[in-house]
Amino acid sequence: MIYFDSLASYPMLPEVREDLQLTMQSHYANPSASHMLGEQGKELIEDTREVLAESLGAFASEIIFTSGATETNNLIIKGVILPLLLKGKKPHLITSAVEHKCILSISNYLELLGCEVTYLNPNSKGEIKPAQVKSALKENTSLVSLMHVNNELGTINPISEIGSICTEARIPLHTDAAQSYLKIQTDVDELNVDFMSISAHKIGGPKGVGAAYIRDLKDLDISPLVHGAGQEFGVRGGTLPTPLIAAFGTAIGAFRNYYTLERNIELKEKLLTGLKRLGVRYRVNGGAETLPSCISLTLASSNIEGLLRGSHQSLALSQGSACSAGSIEPSHVLTSLHFNREEASKTLRISFSHINTAEDIQALVNEIAKYTES
Amino acid sequence: MIYFDSLASYPMLPEVREDLQLTMQSHYANPSASHMLGEQGKELIEDTREVLAESLGAFASEIIFTSGATETNNLIIKGVILPLLLKGKKPHLITSAVEHKCILSISNYLELLGCEVTYLNPNSKGEIKPAQVKSALKENTSLVSLMHVNNELGTINPISEIGSICTEARIPLHTDAAQSYLKIQTDVDELNVDFMSISAHKIGGPKGVGAAYIRDLKDLDISPLVHGAGQEFGVRGGTLPTPLIAAFGTAIGAFRNYYTLERNIELKEKLLTGLKRLGVRYRVNGGAETLPSCISLTLASSNIEGLLRGSHQSLALSQGSACSAGSIEPSHVLTSLHFNREEASKTLRISFSHINTAEDIQALVNEIAKYTES
Ligand SMILES: Cc1ncc(COP(=O)(O)O)c(C=O)c1O
Ligand SMILES: Cc1ncc(COP(=O)(O)O)c(C=O)c1O
Repeated sequence: MIYFDSLASYPMLPEVREDLQLTMQSHYANPSASHMLGEQGKELIEDTREVLAESLGAFASEIIFTSGATETNNLIIKGVILPLLLKGKKPHLITSAVEHKCILSISNYLELLGCEVTYLNPNSKGEIKPAQVKSALKENTSLVSLMHVNNELGTINPISEIGSICTEARIPLHTDAAQSYLKIQTDVDELNVDFMSISAHKIGGPKGVGAAYIRDLKDLDISPLVHGAGQEFGVRGGTLPTPLIAAFGTAIGAFRNYYTLERNIELKEKLLTGLKRLGVRYRVNGGAETLPSCISLTLASSNIEGLLRGSHQSLALSQGSACSAGSIEPSHVLTSLHFNREEASKTLRISFSHINTAEDIQALVNEIAKYTES
Repeated sequence: MIYFDSLASYPMLPEVREDLQLTMQSHYANPSASHMLGEQGKELIEDTREVLAESLGAFASEIIFTSGATETNNLIIKGVILPLLLKGKKPHLITSAVEHKCILSISNYLELLGCEVTYLNPNSKGEIKPAQVKSALKENTSLVSLMHVNNELGTINPISEIGSICTEARIPLHTDAAQSYLKIQTDVDELNVDFMSISAHKIGGPKGVGAAYIRDLKDLDISPLVHGAGQEFGVRGGTLPTPLIAAFGTAIGAFRNYYTLERNIELKEKLLTGLKRLGVRYRVNGGAETLPSCISLTLASSNIEGLLRGSHQSLALSQGSACSAGSIEPSHVLTSLHFNREEASKTLRISFSHINTAEDIQALVNEIAKYTES
């Protein structure tokens, strides 16, 4: 099986696996316990908090561990909007039509409860422009939530410029950085963001753990999503999963050894050159500057359905994102870009990781060519 | 280090560890993906759903995976109460003063939002009587939430009888079974419950995964806590952590080989006999019938503070629960039982697991005796 689905979940790094084998064995205690085993667990957790904070240019006191980016997105957006709704106010949320499905699901829910939501439409690359945000701002705007990197296209949003506009308007900005963290620059000050969502399994860490960055958390009145027994500064309850958090920290430290711009560009070029050589017509979506490890390809003269069926056991490919997998509807991202059903059905998301070799790319090229009219 | 803190977190079972080593390696794909690796992950997850459902006498379609019992408690209670509040109604929640801190935290939050909450007071054993529930029921009661086994005392609540009363009154009953699942009978029909919270790390599984049992989920209109991309029947979003869920299933299958009534009774008797022999005065809290692996002891003539300090590196003991560890306030459970500060500070929760030997018990007895006036 050749894996081209790192945006759905990145293969676990060898260091992370080794780390988990050790910590699963030794860190069975509850890290809130006051005996030595508990304290040792707590130490590992605080180490990861430091490592994560440093990687973002943030303070450790601004990091909350969660079960993943989906939970973090819920924590941030509901944490800001729900208290306003419950006070009888009418808050306004700005987001986009091409966010991850969970953001759309949260926004739809809040809309039903009386929140006003503006869904900005992307340009043909899938990008949201700062000027669009500026003109959408209103008196009652309480939060702007825009993804850093789109999970189907790899498109990078100009979060830093959008952040400047939000800062000036004194509106907090949240960015879902599940797909960008450690892959492109995600310093919270450079990006001018107040909130950020991160997921460990997108950088070779374990599934089931993630984090929230919350600027000046201690001065903020954010309503918990998961009320607990005082863990995580009172913002997120639940026994902290010591092994998962420690492994998250290990992934943060090791990821740069596996993921490089050069390597991804090489794989991408090899893929496109290969297709060209075999006369396969393709269009690259998402514009010129996208996430290095992702490529969205529309293959107009290929039989994608046949390809996916035929390579089911040999290639891990994705049509749209994993979340919409199995759905008969075309991806909301592609329809927002005005792809018709036919174009959407002929679009593949191919995403790379360190386990991909030049031979893998050749195998993919050959397989695509096999299902392409010449 | 001798571990007597299995109620805070149960030592990971060897089978679970082995299983995790394998699945962490092979199941890196997103189980929502439609390629073969995704499908294989999905299969593992559905296997666990079946195993868990069967262990509860439930249907697989009534099981939702979460990050743990804390999240499940939030999902159930807020899922039922918040929609009513948001519709402008005034719901009534019945719970108790000795629930896990997260339940109290959820209840306090809902109270602030306008929910009426009745906190039933336990008897001197820490138990809630069915008659108390019956007389607390009101016109607007929307949910009863009572724990199955108390996490500080080991006291078992008569959930089945309480369930009969609730069924008759057509009020749904939720039980937090984090401490009872697989340790005593937790068949959902025998217990007459509509909702149940379960945590994997209390039965030797990994931390960071748990489940909700929701009776007739498909006919129910439960509001998600974590909105996502359609995972878990739309009730809980987030990439499913295949390895954690598979390991949870392994723990369910293996736990009975490690946890037996006889073994725990033996350890408990050894402890009490040992203390008696060395002339240590003690009182067992929580009544005669408690969770086999837990014993709450008040040691009136022992210097517990000295004991905890002195044995910090050799014994993992707990004063109250792990959640309140480090807190200078006496445990809310013990104060609900009218323990004064002195008594509460002289109370230890000792909880057993399969890794405890007769020698461990002797070491504990000796250590307690060392800090006891004769
Ligand atoms: C942009 C984006 N946000 C959120 C998520 C969800 O993250 P998690 O799986 O950690 O819940 C994903 C991936 O699934 C994603 O690509
Ligand atoms: C009764 C009870 N409920 C809930 C919890 C929380 O479970 P989790 O750690 O899975 O969030 C615990 C233990 O911490 C518990 O003892």
